[in-house]
Amino acid sequence: MTEYLHPLDPATAEEIEKATALVKTAFGDIQLHFKAAGLDEPPKKQLLEYLDAEHAGRPLPALPRNIFVMWYIKRTPRLFEAIVDVTNGTIANQTELPREFHGPIDRAELSEAAAVVIADPGVLKELQRLEIDPTNVVLDPWDYGVDGTETQERQTQVFLYIRNPKNNHPDSNHYSFPLDFMVVVDLCTMKVKSIMRIPMGSDEKIATDSEVTHRETEPAEPEYLHELQKCPPRTSLKPYQVIQPEGASFTVKGHLIEWENWRFRVGFNWREGLTLHDLSFMGQKTFYRLSLSEMFVPYGDPRSPIYRKGAFDLGNVGAGVTANNLKLGCDCLGTIKYFGGHVVAVDGSAAPRDNAICVHEVDAGIQWKHTNHRTGKAVVVRKRQLVLQTIVTVANYEYIFAWIFDQSGEIIMETRATGILSTQPISKDAKVAWGTRVADGVVAPYHQHLFSLRIDPAVGGNQNSFVTSDSVPIPWDDVLNPLGTGYCTDDKTVQRAGAVEDDVSKGRAFKIINENTINPVSLTPIGYKIVPIRSQMLLAQPGSWHWRRSEFAESPFWVTKYKDRQLFSAGDYTNQSLGGTGIKAWTKDCEMVRNEDIVIWHTYGLTHNPRVEDFPIMPAEIVQVSLKPNNFLLYNPTMDVPESSQIFNKSVAYEDKVQPEEEKSDVSTCCSA
Amino acid sequence: MTEYLHPLDPATAEEIEKATALVKTAFGDIQLHFKAAGLDEPPKKQLLEYLDAEHAGRPLPALPRNIFVMWYIKRTPRLFEAIVDVTNGTIANQTELPREFHGPIDRAELSEAAAVVIADPGVLKELQRLEIDPTNVVLDPWDYGVDGTETQERQTQVFLYIRNPKNNHPDSNHYSFPLDFMVVVDLCTMKVKSIMRIPMGSDEKIATDSEVTHRETEPAEPEYLHELQKCPPRTSLKPYQVIQPEGASFTVKGHLIEWENWRFRVGFNWREGLTLHDLSFMGQKTFYRLSLSEMFVPYGDPRSPIYRKGAFDLGNVGAGVTANNLKLGCDCLGTIKYFGGHVVAVDGSAAPRDNAICVHEVDAGIQWKHTNHRTGKAVVVRKRQLVLQTIVTVANYEYIFAWIFDQSGEIIMETRATGILSTQPISKDAKVAWGTRVADGVVAPYHQHLFSLRIDPAVGGNQNSFVTSDSVPIPWDDVLNPLGTGYCTDDKTVQRAGAVEDDVSKGRAFKIINENTINPVSLTPIGYKIVPIRSQMLLAQPGSWHWRRSEFAESPFWVTKYKDRQLFSAGDYTNQSLGGTGIKAWTKDCEMVRNEDIVIWHTYGLTHNPRVEDFPIMPAEIVQVSLKPNNFLLYNPTMDVPESSQIFNKSVAYEDKVQPEEEKSDVSTCCSA
Repeated sequence: MTEYLHPLDPATAEEIEKATALVKTAFGDIQLHFKAAGLDEPPKKQLLEYLDAEHAGRPLPALPRNIFVMWYIKRTPRLFEAIVDVTNGTIANQTELPREFHGPIDRAELSEAAAVVIADPGVLKELQRLEIDPTNVVLDPWDYGVDGTETQERQTQVFLYIRNPKNNHPDSNHYSFPLDFMVVVDLCTMKVKSIMRIPMGSDEKIATDSEVTHRETEPAEPEYLHELQKCPPRTSLKPYQVIQPEGASFTVKGHLIEWENWRFRVGFNWREGLTLHDLSFMGQKTFYRLSLSEMFVPYGDPRSPIYRKGAFDLGNVGAGVTANNLKLGCDCLGTIKYFGGHVVAVDGSAAPRDNAICVHEVDAGIQWKHTNHRTGKAVVVRKRQLVLQTIVTVANYEYIFAWIFDQSGEIIMETRATGILSTQPISKDAKVAWGTRVADGVVAPYHQHLFSLRIDPAVGGNQNSFVTSDSVPIPWDDVLNPLGTGYCTDDKTVQRAGAVEDDVSKGRAFKIINENTINPVSLTPIGYKIVPIRSQMLLAQPGSWHWRRSEFAESPFWVTKYKDRQLFSAGDYTNQSLGGTGIKAWTKDCEMVRNEDIVIWHTYGLTHNPRVEDFPIMPAEIVQVSLKPNNFLLYNPTMDVPESSQIFNKSVAYEDKVQPEEEKSDVSTCCSA
Repeated sequence: MTEYLHPLDPATAEEIEKATALVKTAFGDIQLHFKAAGLDEPPKKQLLEYLDAEHAGRPLPALPRNIFVMWYIKRTPRLFEAIVDVTNGTIANQTELPREFHGPIDRAELSEAAAVVIADPGVLKELQRLEIDPTNVVLDPWDYGVDGTETQERQTQVFLYIRNPKNNHPDSNHYSFPLDFMVVVDLCTMKVKSIMRIPMGSDEKIATDSEVTHRETEPAEPEYLHELQKCPPRTSLKPYQVIQPEGASFTVKGHLIEWENWRFRVGFNWREGLTLHDLSFMGQKTFYRLSLSEMFVPYGDPRSPIYRKGAFDLGNVGAGVTANNLKLGCDCLGTIKYFGGHVVAVDGSAAPRDNAICVHEVDAGIQWKHTNHRTGKAVVVRKRQLVLQTIVTVANYEYIFAWIFDQSGEIIMETRATGILSTQPISKDAKVAWGTRVADGVVAPYHQHLFSLRIDPAVGGNQNSFVTSDSVPIPWDDVLNPLGTGYCTDDKTVQRAGAVEDDVSKGRAFKIINENTINPVSLTPIGYKIVPIRSQMLLAQPGSWHWRRSEFAESPFWVTKYKDRQLFSAGDYTNQSLGGTGIKAWTKDCEMVRNEDIVIWHTYGLTHNPRVEDFPIMPAEIVQVSLKPNNFLLYNPTMDVPESSQIFNKSVAYEDKVQPEEEKSDVSTCCSA
């Protein structure tokens, strides 16, 4: 490695290929199938020493660069992982995993399985039954799910669709045309294991061997691609451009970003995609590491054979692996910085993920305003935000994740769920209690999106505590609450690792505090609060496989004592997982977590019972969880943001037909009433 | 009236002055004090006939223009209201209200009261005790609140502050310097009634007659006005301009706005400020009328004399009365249309509220995206929104209300709470359980902001029903739920008028449906859903005056059968109100509301336990409630929004130092992977 790399910089192509080359050498002639590779971040103790030296401008300790690698012996269930020290060229911690552990799926393997399916005589027979030309079929191979049987076998479940018969276009929206059977493929033998018909009514009844089941014939609008739609795009929308004549307000040096009192590093890996590190605001430490740890998408159709449908999109696939290449002018407006990264291809070569992260500013309306009614003097300050956005495509669905930094010290984690609903066929007039008919012959089953946010705090330092704060009525009291109008907060500090429940009726607030640092203004510990959304936890029955596997999804908050490499709340290996290796395992010892180096795991979710309006493509469903300074600073940190002014903003009155060259004199001084 | 006015157009200056002139004439020499005037909207039956004719292009029925007027006989408790037909010059429904009913406060009256306070010998004695020069004092007169005594007297409670001693500037932030006593003034006699000291510790103890209580001396940053701050404004923020070279995508004709399949009318009145009428999307009726009905801000300090503190900012003051004049380039970006309106001055003349509403478009990121992994083809469509914003200043606080229309048929009601915390003094080291020290000697008491949104639906017509839809696990079943993974919805239709509770654990969804129109795709009634926030209801004790008065604040939803002039959920007269005239009164008969003309009242709130970061001015606390089409249409209505493209958006890569004249060839075709 000739170039300088910060210990948190993502794995480079050279590092990944050096690591896989070392592994390949160790295995000699044995053919390997690489599943994952990326930076193995330094242990916290070492990294903190490095970061402290960096912040203080002291000489930097040498830290080796380590790459995590995961691979199979090709076409076998033998799964390995290792940490490869690419600085010194050594392999450490190589482990062969137990046979119940399965690596993530990958596109190469799934495409191979799809080819097997479409050539299978049993499948061809089913297509013949349905009077479908096999060349019109589109296959959607998914991670398999678990039913408690054959737990050692690597499998994929494949859903089948056809292209729109009206256009037969390769980008036709096949989700408008689901078929009534699915196929399971063994990924080691690469053979079809079973073909199973999907019930099309409200009970378990499936098609007979000679039945041509109902299919959508003349849907309202089955296509999302503009050139395939019945009507041309609207012409009513006028251009809207964001112009930053002096460029962006942020600076980027390597993977270090500085913007409006914020300073942090951007990371990237195959699994979590975008990660954030070593964050500080106004010179004070806030968070050590922020990331999306996992997500689970369990489906509501309770019946065989689709009852296994439930995807861990990070652990089973990878948010870095599936990161979109964000093209200029499409996914963000304004002045945009892009970061890319690398993942590994099945042969061990590095696969680039260019433009996986875009960084840009947005104007988010008004930050604060006040008018003194005595003098008429008004002051208004606008709200600028810095957005780090990444978009992943997981088969049918897209997730747009954005970490949004605010001038006020707030960090918002925004999730947008978009893309296309995973659909099933349904009979002509059937209705079901667990799904919505989104087109004739097409049902979109109810499902949940449950996200696990990993918050490794450093609120004023690494020793933190987690507190719930309820707002509760003060009891009636002749002297101290004579009108019964008072209320106060009831704070509880979490003492031991475990789950923490929400209580909306108590207006429960969730705070990360540092009991070692008292805010001299509030006279209380400095803190950050986590502002959750109105969110429902996992609906699957306790004891079900969905429930066992998605350990984080039962409670909105979990607190653990920090452990190196404890990053993934449903376990390191989620594909076909059996549970027992995630957050519940880590908290069963009930370790003391007060005033310790702790990690907060926040589960938030969307119960997505589809609407007709979500089809054929889904307007983004948007949720925002936020981290807000709470008695962390001495005053509002946006005080010194300059006043909003027409000279700066150059707005235009609707009545003015053309944009004025210079602002009119009667509007150049504004913001006083 | 020479110009044509639509029946929903706000009252003009001429109409208001014609109405007050008629009232004045009727009262002869008796001096009147006008409190309110504005359009009295036509009864629904008549207005619907008019709107149907308008939509059908038929001849329009003649409807008289009516103005609601409210006034006192000056310096008396005698309060009147009437409807004045300004088309025909007649007064109807003139009523003198019972003596327990009080009109809203007004700035003229409060300023008079403030002058009385500062000249009062008792007050001067208190100032002497505190060693304060009376010319440095700033007064904050508030609506009075209720303690069950003297319910027939019109009163104001006045909080006292001083200007920052370091600058003694008229726009200094006096909320950083609260004094330890308050004053009650009788508004009929215009005399001080009582002077009461405010406890400064955690119990009821008040200052002795010779005590100079603790005051802030050297706060971190007491000022929000830039020229008074210790440090100059930051220079790090680069300009960010929204350019719409072809102008706005909306059209305005009078008060009718059309934009991206939306069509609706803008209204304005003294009390609710901005109102929306006759809304349709893609040619289908959605809502008859949308408005903020009321808000209540009860404070948590339980002790005398401040335990009465709780404001109904609409009924006691008026969102139209307090609407800011929104200057170009300050409160919104881009191409902006402004609407103004008129309220009444105390003498009966019309008082303009210019630029009370601004209308502009925003780009809200990505509306939808999908990449077909088989072909690499990506399509991304951006999310344009239309924002109608109004900002009110109620003494210390500002509220920014925005109705945001989305291309997807969604309407978002955004509330931003900003401005300055209402503060009290606190001893040097005291802490209290119902407030936060936000500066030395300054405590900001906990309080709630409880908003009542009035949703008068017309989802596909005026006969609607209200439904709760819970997502619940399906019981284990060997055939129909063998893995325990299934879930379904449990819908309940509200049969009778009353409150409807939330249940977050059930993921409860709230839908307005039209049982007379079945969506041919979903085979279920067409509907809109109301998406609430995670919100706590009123904390004051049941039976307390806060609780009796804020009838809506106990439950998140209320359903009533539509009645003309039933607009204000805490009653028509909220100032010093005793309760019993709002939503609870209207629902006590439990009328049938299924498939009727109904109104939905949605309570949402912020439990605002201040942070140090909320002072000396508060970064806006933002919440959004939304109305979303739910099986209302036949497919995603944003399908035909053109693809996002660099040609349209003209973004700039961070590395490019200057904005390119033309987009580079390698980025001009984008959005395919």
